[in-house]
Amino acid sequence: MNAVPAPLLSQAEALSETVTRPIPGSRKVYVHGSRGDLRVPMREIALADTPSLFGAESNAPFTVYDTSGPYTDPDYRVDLAAGLPALRAAWIEERADTERLADFSSPFTRRHAAAAQLDAVRFPHVPKPRVARAGANVSQMHYARRGIVTPEMEYVAIRENQRLEAIREMHLLKQHPGQSFGAAIPKIITPEFVRAEIARGRAIIPNNINHPESEPMIIGRNFLVKINANIGNSAVTSSIAEEVEKMVWAIRWGADTVMDLSTGRHIHETREWIIRNSPVPIGTVPIYQALEKVGGVAEDLTWELFRDTLIEQAEQGVDYFTIHAGVRLPFIPLTASRMTGIVSRGGSIMAKWCLAHHRESFLYERFEEICDIMKAYDVAFSLGDGLRPGSIADANDAAQFAELDTLGELTQIAWQHDVQVMIEGPGHVPMHLIKENMERQLEKCHEAPFYTLGPLTTDIAPGYDHITSAIGAAMIGWYGTAMLCYVTPKEHLGLPDKQDVRDGIITYKLAAHAADLGKGHPAAQTRDNALSKARFEFRWQDQFNLGLDPEKAKEFHDETLPKDAHKTAHFCSMCGPKFCSMKITQDVRDYAKEHGTAAQVDEAMAAKAAEFRAQGGEIYRPD
Amino acid sequence: MNAVPAPLLSQAEALSETVTRPIPGSRKVYVHGSRGDLRVPMREIALADTPSLFGAESNAPFTVYDTSGPYTDPDYRVDLAAGLPALRAAWIEERADTERLADFSSPFTRRHAAAAQLDAVRFPHVPKPRVARAGANVSQMHYARRGIVTPEMEYVAIRENQRLEAIREMHLLKQHPGQSFGAAIPKIITPEFVRAEIARGRAIIPNNINHPESEPMIIGRNFLVKINANIGNSAVTSSIAEEVEKMVWAIRWGADTVMDLSTGRHIHETREWIIRNSPVPIGTVPIYQALEKVGGVAEDLTWELFRDTLIEQAEQGVDYFTIHAGVRLPFIPLTASRMTGIVSRGGSIMAKWCLAHHRESFLYERFEEICDIMKAYDVAFSLGDGLRPGSIADANDAAQFAELDTLGELTQIAWQHDVQVMIEGPGHVPMHLIKENMERQLEKCHEAPFYTLGPLTTDIAPGYDHITSAIGAAMIGWYGTAMLCYVTPKEHLGLPDKQDVRDGIITYKLAAHAADLGKGHPAAQTRDNALSKARFEFRWQDQFNLGLDPEKAKEFHDETLPKDAHKTAHFCSMCGPKFCSMKITQDVRDYAKEHGTAAQVDEAMAAKAAEFRAQGGEIYRPD
Repeated sequence: MNAVPAPLLSQAEALSETVTRPIPGSRKVYVHGSRGDLRVPMREIALADTPSLFGAESNAPFTVYDTSGPYTDPDYRVDLAAGLPALRAAWIEERADTERLADFSSPFTRRHAAAAQLDAVRFPHVPKPRVARAGANVSQMHYARRGIVTPEMEYVAIRENQRLEAIREMHLLKQHPGQSFGAAIPKIITPEFVRAEIARGRAIIPNNINHPESEPMIIGRNFLVKINANIGNSAVTSSIAEEVEKMVWAIRWGADTVMDLSTGRHIHETREWIIRNSPVPIGTVPIYQALEKVGGVAEDLTWELFRDTLIEQAEQGVDYFTIHAGVRLPFIPLTASRMTGIVSRGGSIMAKWCLAHHRESFLYERFEEICDIMKAYDVAFSLGDGLRPGSIADANDAAQFAELDTLGELTQIAWQHDVQVMIEGPGHVPMHLIKENMERQLEKCHEAPFYTLGPLTTDIAPGYDHITSAIGAAMIGWYGTAMLCYVTPKEHLGLPDKQDVRDGIITYKLAAHAADLGKGHPAAQTRDNALSKARFEFRWQDQFNLGLDPEKAKEFHDETLPKDAHKTAHFCSMCGPKFCSMKITQDVRDYAKEHGTAAQVDEAMAAKAAEFRAQGGEIYRPD
Repeated sequence: MNAVPAPLLSQAEALSETVTRPIPGSRKVYVHGSRGDLRVPMREIALADTPSLFGAESNAPFTVYDTSGPYTDPDYRVDLAAGLPALRAAWIEERADTERLADFSSPFTRRHAAAAQLDAVRFPHVPKPRVARAGANVSQMHYARRGIVTPEMEYVAIRENQRLEAIREMHLLKQHPGQSFGAAIPKIITPEFVRAEIARGRAIIPNNINHPESEPMIIGRNFLVKINANIGNSAVTSSIAEEVEKMVWAIRWGADTVMDLSTGRHIHETREWIIRNSPVPIGTVPIYQALEKVGGVAEDLTWELFRDTLIEQAEQGVDYFTIHAGVRLPFIPLTASRMTGIVSRGGSIMAKWCLAHHRESFLYERFEEICDIMKAYDVAFSLGDGLRPGSIADANDAAQFAELDTLGELTQIAWQHDVQVMIEGPGHVPMHLIKENMERQLEKCHEAPFYTLGPLTTDIAPGYDHITSAIGAAMIGWYGTAMLCYVTPKEHLGLPDKQDVRDGIITYKLAAHAADLGKGHPAAQTRDNALSKARFEFRWQDQFNLGLDPEKAKEFHDETLPKDAHKTAHFCSMCGPKFCSMKITQDVRDYAKEHGTAAQVDEAMAAKAAEFRAQGGEIYRPD
């Protein structure tokens, strides 16, 4: 049961080749914005020419959203001990509303910085923290509401568009009109649209001024659906090196944000390594660390200790905090008759505290003081759903909805402080009750972005909860959820290893994409079209590379048809070489050309059918 | 590219231990019906007592639907060369409307029976075929319409109820009201209800009189959602032994029917082995074999050859035939401008034939003759969707819907012959277009059961299409689809191996169950409740055993907490031993007991909040 003592020894070599090797068929490209230091990374997938059988044509490279950071840039030399370049540093400094402190504000941080026994696990170049100048508010929402389009906003606008405007191939742009349930997705995302969405609270850019290494991204119902991956050590297992590796692994596969949920040894030091090396926003649940600080005894938690933990983490650069401020004392008894009580860890910590002291939660009572901290660093709220259902039986019950209503109330308070907010959502919900969650969240929380865990649509498949939850995640994403928190196959059973992280992320990427298609996001179907065209034309390598997991796709193909020659074969293992459905479509196309339009053929067939009827086939009704 | 010559040598040993070993914690039970030979198999899962921490109580064994057949009955001695016992033989004979033929009607079958070079691969005890007496109709629909409740109907009624009536624990029966979109699911399924549903065509029992080994099951929107698993060799790979093993493997994990889609060597002989050893209905696509008979040249197909193939397979005992009779000549040009043309193998075979001869499909023109064959053996139609979309771009287009309308027309013709019918559905469909498919099918096909492949909700995840499609499958199942055809991770890439079959089946079982929950099927939530209760009470082994894949769940748990002691530990690897969310709920329950109902607590809290407001906290609004 002991933690494995395997500290990261400040070596670039700590990352294994599997997390940094080139993504097949892809190269890193940068799209430039209005200023020289605004370069938005994207991934460009090279495509082969269409074979002559299908009308020989060249296929332009295809651009996709890229979360993988500098790790997939061959020009970047990975040095974990140095951390990533601070790409937003100049933007933050130019705003001239922050100052760099001489030392950390948190006594806890200062103690840890001074402790010699932590030298071996400490990130070697911890930067001094930055904080808003007295009276200033450095949140993106604050700028947005004052009409300022920040470089961060321009960055995400470029990023969201994925060079859609550059696509010339009409067949790729073909798209079904979506059903967006009241979302307002524009055809092209402009920086001004981003600003307006942030100003009204319908989207957030989580980017702490102390995490200038992050590549801005946006979470909101009118943007691409995002996914979060959880990592973190526990009392039971894993090391710092493993967690940094998991973070780089997670963004390689497409995690838009990463939550560090560590509860084991060296929480503070692990987090520093992760943030300094993370190009995506990092979220945490500060109450986890606060609980560690009081030796796991929930009733010993105090506001002062929690406050210090917030400042400690804000000055490290955590981009969003899950805060379970909606777990109010009066709601706790509502969970007594549940099938599975309170299953959120943060929720149960606060419930325990409230019961032990028989008083209202300090998170709720001190909420405005928390807002003051958030706006001094631009940390976004992720208002936690501590009373989320842990089983199908408990879905959409009084406890869950009482908390959700309170989160709506807290959202308005945060917005009075121009603090960015998203709302966490369930949990376990059967399909027919999912929409109610989304509609209630939109109404009660005034369209603040919804960030849901799944939801799992059944409880009966332990070992496959990435799938039970992907069903719910795709649906709630379609209905309007802005970010989906992944679930791995190990949910309910154990801690995810690297393979589980990959399975969870790809599963959630496809769910998020299915949601984008459902909503009719303008850039969404282009990738389906490009891949389907490659599939139809037997461009195997292109089919693999356009997919979410090129390595897995190729590996599966190799299992049946291992030879390289089969990657260009105009048949597949399903039908074999003798007969091929795809080829027949060429005949159909030739036939259509020869016989005219479908309407003309219809007419001819009607005549034929009439003739047939006359011969006694009266039951056949030509349409 | 050659088929692997690995014939099955009539040994029981041909089944590996992995497909026949006991299912953990389970035992086979039989529920008796109104006659001595009517014994419906179910699987009973033994449960441990609730630990004292959670209020020590005993937990009655839990009964689940069982598709695994005699293979999981320890009293049954597997002998593949003998085949399964003919449990329905007496029921068929008693009806006295069939006769056993002296020899097979199909010249093809007779040739194969006489060919010495097939001795090594031939099933050793091929039974002589049974056929309806002249003028008789032996379909379950025919009996149902005459008011006869067959033993098969009683069998499925008992089977569908899953001993729900025996459940005494009120917490297990707790269930959210469903949203069934017009389905009419009764609380308890009676034999008369089964009869009525079959009579009106809203459900089918596929059970050929030449497959008396099959355990009756029902497919219809007012019953549990079923799943089908495809097996079958191809020109590229696999042997008879592998296919029989895959069939037993598939039913072990929960396949309700199995389709044999073989296109490789020894199609006829492989099918015989499968049927004789299958307790679930077997479906085929006869055009595949017909195409083999003409050397893969679609234009050489003839009605006569196809007809002989139908009779060949009907006399072997195939329970349902996929027939692509809706691929009409006038619809083919509608596919010319598609992204991916015609992707159904059967559809493209027929399209090729129609184009080559420039005439209407013989399947459409000879449809009534096909009905005559179907009713002589009680083979059910699975009217194939040969024009289903093969990409998101092609979803819900004119070709697809023209064919669907034709399938509705053919349904009515089949029903004039009292022949059972289900309708195959897509394919690739984005989430927001799925409902339109279901609604149109219900309307145009008069509520004949819908049987869909997925649908895949995005094209961009090759290697994960069991998941892209499970999302669509769960949704369309909820909307009213009666059976879901599984998709494995190898879809589009290669042929599924045993692990892929398992992944595909479990994925589809959970999707089907999520659909049952959504519809509000009365027996559905009991299993979620039982599992969630076990989870909450840290009855690890019960949690595993109540899941769809006990072996995988245990294996995952072992990876983090391998010791046996941890299977009874009152904590898990997520939080570790020091802190546990679950335990806190006990505190909550004690608190609620002490402080009265939630309403009383609310009142007390309102007073407290008022006090807080008086102190200046005016922005906090107690509800």
